[in-house]
Amino acid sequence: MRIGVLGTGMVGQTLSAKLAELGHDVMVGTRDVAALLARTEPGMGQTEPFSAWSRAHPAIRLGTFAEAVAHGETLFNATSGTVSLAVLEQAGAANLDGKVLVDVSNPLDFSRGMPPTLTVSNTDSVGEQLQRAFPGLKVVKSLNTVTAALMVNPRLLADSDHTMFVCGNDAAAKAHVTTMLTDWFGWRDVVDLGDISTARGLEMYLPLWLRLWGTLGTPMLNIKVMR
Amino acid sequence: MRIGVLGTGMVGQTLSAKLAELGHDVMVGTRDVAALLARTEPGMGQTEPFSAWSRAHPAIRLGTFAEAVAHGETLFNATSGTVSLAVLEQAGAANLDGKVLVDVSNPLDFSRGMPPTLTVSNTDSVGEQLQRAFPGLKVVKSLNTVTAALMVNPRLLADSDHTMFVCGNDAAAKAHVTTMLTDWFGWRDVVDLGDISTARGLEMYLPLWLRLWGTLGTPMLNIKVMR
Repeated sequence: MRIGVLGTGMVGQTLSAKLAELGHDVMVGTRDVAALLARTEPGMGQTEPFSAWSRAHPAIRLGTFAEAVAHGETLFNATSGTVSLAVLEQAGAANLDGKVLVDVSNPLDFSRGMPPTLTVSNTDSVGEQLQRAFPGLKVVKSLNTVTAALMVNPRLLADSDHTMFVCGNDAAAKAHVTTMLTDWFGWRDVVDLGDISTARGLEMYLPLWLRLWGTLGTPMLNIKVMR
Repeated sequence: MRIGVLGTGMVGQTLSAKLAELGHDVMVGTRDVAALLARTEPGMGQTEPFSAWSRAHPAIRLGTFAEAVAHGETLFNATSGTVSLAVLEQAGAANLDGKVLVDVSNPLDFSRGMPPTLTVSNTDSVGEQLQRAFPGLKVVKSLNTVTAALMVNPRLLADSDHTMFVCGNDAAAKAHVTTMLTDWFGWRDVVDLGDISTARGLEMYLPLWLRLWGTLGTPMLNIKVMR
């Protein structure tokens, strides 16, 4: 499948690498291709500059946000939730119509130090913002509740005995994402929370997740919904 | 032990009944004793007016907020998080000094319909508000992440194989609350999240919890932290 991944950070790299490894035709999108390749410093949480990662993953193409969105039949939003709306506006509504976008973003604001706060929460969420701005896009919020490595390989923790969530307004889009989660990545427990407004709950979980990371000393953690 | 429980709703009743059953000397506090006993309608989530419940639990005394706080060596805040600060102000700072208060509250605002929003979140929490207002009080946030029945009887779900949290600034107070959770109520997994600022994470989890209740059709659910 042709897949567009928006964002070249840790999450974008991890998703792209796994999707390419599974045989999909992946293009990763960024704001300014030349500027990204010219960068010599690794980004937050990364061990090497993007150019080095890109050379090690020659099958994954690099393009602008608009090119990656045009390329993909299915899209992943791996940009920061603080800029996701601007990124999709840059990509263009026409390229988005009718496509499924897995919204992995979190609106974390680190500018006031640790712990970060959310730039949108309580009465709204990034998932809802994107769905409102692009009614033709099928936004499915998912994967934002775990660290990148677990997103694509949940078996790294407790033999996958933990929970992933999906939410969104389009049942077929949620079914498609659920199949990717289970058949491609290995998730065993996927809970459908409801419509896109439930993205609030998923994004507002992040402060607890960050504190669990701090307390446990590792981001290799997740919650299992017991019922 | 002498225990003061603030709040006569579902949570206050459930906590008081269990604590009295365990042999503790419990006083439950309310704003206006006469008005509460005169009420003939059951409260939200309750099946009978408070007076009927009170007659069925003769060992549990009823008093004002100030009387319940003065009575208790350990306190439970089972009022709505939207009024908790006002309730403690009514109880009086002098009565609170040096005591441990288990803050079970959530600042849920149902006035704009379902799902409710939080009246304080993201940059603050009820737990922090109470601790700031009463520096001599030892606030430990806990139990706010599950339905009342599970608070005092976690074995009702998955043989207690799920997680409870504590957070607060006073290590001895957290140790005391953790012992109550494990030895009195039967919790098997209690995670110490850190200082009282981590109450934000626990209160901001509520929107996800409410959606899980909606999706699963029952509040008899909880999360287990897999690590």
